[in-house]
Amino acid sequence: MKSFIEVSPDSDFPIQNLPYGVFSKPGDETRRIGVAIGDQVLDLSAIRHLFTGPILSSQQDVFAKPSLNALMALGRPAWTEARETIQKLLSADEPTLRDNQELRAAALVPQADVTMHLPAEVGDYTDFYSSREHASNLGSMFRDPSNPLLPNWLHIPVGYHGRASSVVISGTPLHRPCGQTRPNNGPVLACCHNRCALTGSVECGQGNVLQGMLVWLAMTSHVALESGRLSTTLCREKVPPSHGALHGVYCHSHRHPALSTLDAVVPPSVVVVASEPAPLPYLKHDDPYSFDIKLSVKIVPEGGSGKVVANTNFKHMYWTMKQQLAHHTITGCNVRPGDLMGSGTISGTDPSAYGSMIELSWKGTKELDVGDGEKRKFLKDGDTVVLAGHCQGDGYRVGFGQCSGKVLPARVRVD
Amino acid sequence: MKSFIEVSPDSDFPIQNLPYGVFSKPGDETRRIGVAIGDQVLDLSAIRHLFTGPILSSQQDVFAKPSLNALMALGRPAWTEARETIQKLLSADEPTLRDNQELRAAALVPQADVTMHLPAEVGDYTDFYSSREHASNLGSMFRDPSNPLLPNWLHIPVGYHGRASSVVISGTPLHRPCGQTRPNNGPVLACCHNRCALTGSVECGQGNVLQGMLVWLAMTSHVALESGRLSTTLCREKVPPSHGALHGVYCHSHRHPALSTLDAVVPPSVVVVASEPAPLPYLKHDDPYSFDIKLSVKIVPEGGSGKVVANTNFKHMYWTMKQQLAHHTITGCNVRPGDLMGSGTISGTDPSAYGSMIELSWKGTKELDVGDGEKRKFLKDGDTVVLAGHCQGDGYRVGFGQCSGKVLPARVRVD
Ligand SMILES: [Ca+2]
Ligand SMILES: [Ca+2]
Ligand SMILES: [Mg+2]
Ligand SMILES: [Mg+2]
Ligand code: NI
Repeated sequence: MKSFIEVSPDSDFPIQNLPYGVFSKPGDETRRIGVAIGDQVLDLSAIRHLFTGPILSSQQDVFAKPSLNALMALGRPAWTEARETIQKLLSADEPTLRDNQELRAAALVPQADVTMHLPAEVGDYTDFYSSREHASNLGSMFRDPSNPLLPNWLHIPVGYHGRASSVVISGTPLHRPCGQTRPNNGPVLACCHNRCALTGSVECGQGNVLQGMLVWLAMTSHVALESGRLSTTLCREKVPPSHGALHGVYCHSHRHPALSTLDAVVPPSVVVVASEPAPLPYLKHDDPYSFDIKLSVKIVPEGGSGKVVANTNFKHMYWTMKQQLAHHTITGCNVRPGDLMGSGTISGTDPSAYGSMIELSWKGTKELDVGDGEKRKFLKDGDTVVLAGHCQGDGYRVGFGQCSGKVLPARVRVD
Repeated sequence: MKSFIEVSPDSDFPIQNLPYGVFSKPGDETRRIGVAIGDQVLDLSAIRHLFTGPILSSQQDVFAKPSLNALMALGRPAWTEARETIQKLLSADEPTLRDNQELRAAALVPQADVTMHLPAEVGDYTDFYSSREHASNLGSMFRDPSNPLLPNWLHIPVGYHGRASSVVISGTPLHRPCGQTRPNNGPVLACCHNRCALTGSVECGQGNVLQGMLVWLAMTSHVALESGRLSTTLCREKVPPSHGALHGVYCHSHRHPALSTLDAVVPPSVVVVASEPAPLPYLKHDDPYSFDIKLSVKIVPEGGSGKVVANTNFKHMYWTMKQQLAHHTITGCNVRPGDLMGSGTISGTDPSAYGSMIELSWKGTKELDVGDGEKRKFLKDGDTVVLAGHCQGDGYRVGFGQCSGKVLPARVRVD
């Protein structure tokens, strides 16, 4: 498959990908839904009359909205139909858009000129903790290296609520957070060590409780106050009688502006890590539902060029997105289109595949080479974290672009 | 102050109250902003041209929206101006509305005829745990009666994230939730004991991180899976390595459809419970900022008339709403208009003032007389919980109406 729009072989956005996003043009604040193709954005609001398939012919208005929520609410058959329509319109041998100079001028915008916005209104944001390697590493550090994984973890896809207001678009800088700590005697207010973690996220489609489907892939990082598990800056929020950390990892989560659909992910799925012990029936599914997504974390010191500090893969996850959703909704909890579910930190077995700063620096005991002659145990003010991910197809790659965030000095001065 | 609309002395909605809500008329799905007056609703969208004060004359459109978020975003000076305008328009000696039969017919609707909707889009929902009596009772039950309050609690307004999707309007029935429990050996899926708790909520006005103001009062109940703290149905979500309970108390929170403003609360404020030890400077404020709101919990068995099982008061709270917001935002966390912050269960020192089922039945060890010859340790399918609250003025009451929810049988059958 080839597009009439030139796409370089190492582009994240070939015709096989077509991730959705919300953008605005220079000098015009209108938010528009688009897909990335090569170094262009195709403005779907400008070509919405061309969605003439059985589902979308009566739903063309979803492409004129300022967010993807309405399109998400239509469900996966509609997204598949949209994908087929867009692939046809962009293909090298289809004249409708290719030969219509006026329509091309209206509908194609260089990516370099656009401003990206949050693609969907996130109603609720849940973060899971689904990597066995990550959970074991943390258990090893903070509890017992000889028994790092508590039995609970093998029965439940552990998750916790995040804060939807904390989700920001890639590129948004983040002020170093502060919080209560208790270094010696009394509590004090202190700036926190900044860490980051790589997590894969899915956006939920249908709001139906029992039939909810996970369909969008995105990436988030959190450069955040890891208060809940850092004894050095113990913010004490997980200490009973709390039901859980309030601030914890939720100062900000960055998300990449483009959302790829599962139809674009290649290969479509891979076999899931075996579960032992077997989970309860409501958590069982027979189909392979994991994904071979190559992921990397790079740290760039201020003014430097930085270095990739970890390479990992989404396929390492123990609990699948289906299991997460099943567990989330078994109580009767409702999930709405646009809701975000994070996988939790994605770590592999090899230390070079650890997905979080706390594992990479092993609780601050190891220095990390971040290039430019710099070393880090924690993030410094001025550091930028860059996450990237892609699936490799045969002769093309389906990329998730980059997701980045810079650490600014704390707003509140404490010492 | 008297309105030309007849208001009975025991009404929750005299001209001194004027709580906001979102309603629709019979046969018309349009959502409208209104205020309650006596047994009527004043449709503010129908009289928005009469908001001619310095702030609102250019902002009349906020009254034509389907939710209160835009009005909330204007901040407290705008709400005070709106209140003055509405009070003047409704007062006995003001002819503008009183003598205009056409406008009265368009703008006044009997409460009995309207459908109430969620008054605001809740971006995020945080539940605190701010009653010392409640926290001590729970600590006494589940940890150590001789040392019920852990020191942490006295330094931090403990809070945790809820799920905005779980907030439903008063009157919405709730299916009994299910979840993983571990009664003896392996984990099983089980229906949970239902409990309820009374909590006062505030809706945040301005989104400004450092200057955020708490201005709306509302009530929520949760008839929910108290998995996190019930050993009998231990859903194990607080067990490490979790950052906190996912389901916990969040199956559903009911909220009353009408929101009173702080300007309506009488007396405006009462002295706050003394803090010992003194909190960190960012948690200190000098002004009295607690409220004398009388609250009650009633349980009504199916087909019965029920009984009030607890009477308590919002003024018992140890941590104030200002302290909760200060703690929530100290990290840099952003709060948006419409965000909901619950106080947590409101308990007094006397057992008749305990605000939660778990305290009233003391962990299921005591039976509670709920009238109609019925006794309860937990809520039964078919039970309805009714919360009510009001402030007493001189010759009138500012009421928060009632907030109710019925327990339906579990959707998923397990045994
Ligand atoms: Ca598995
Ligand atoms: Ca206090
Ligand atoms: Mg995480
Ligand atoms: Mg509570
Ligand atoms: Ni975490």
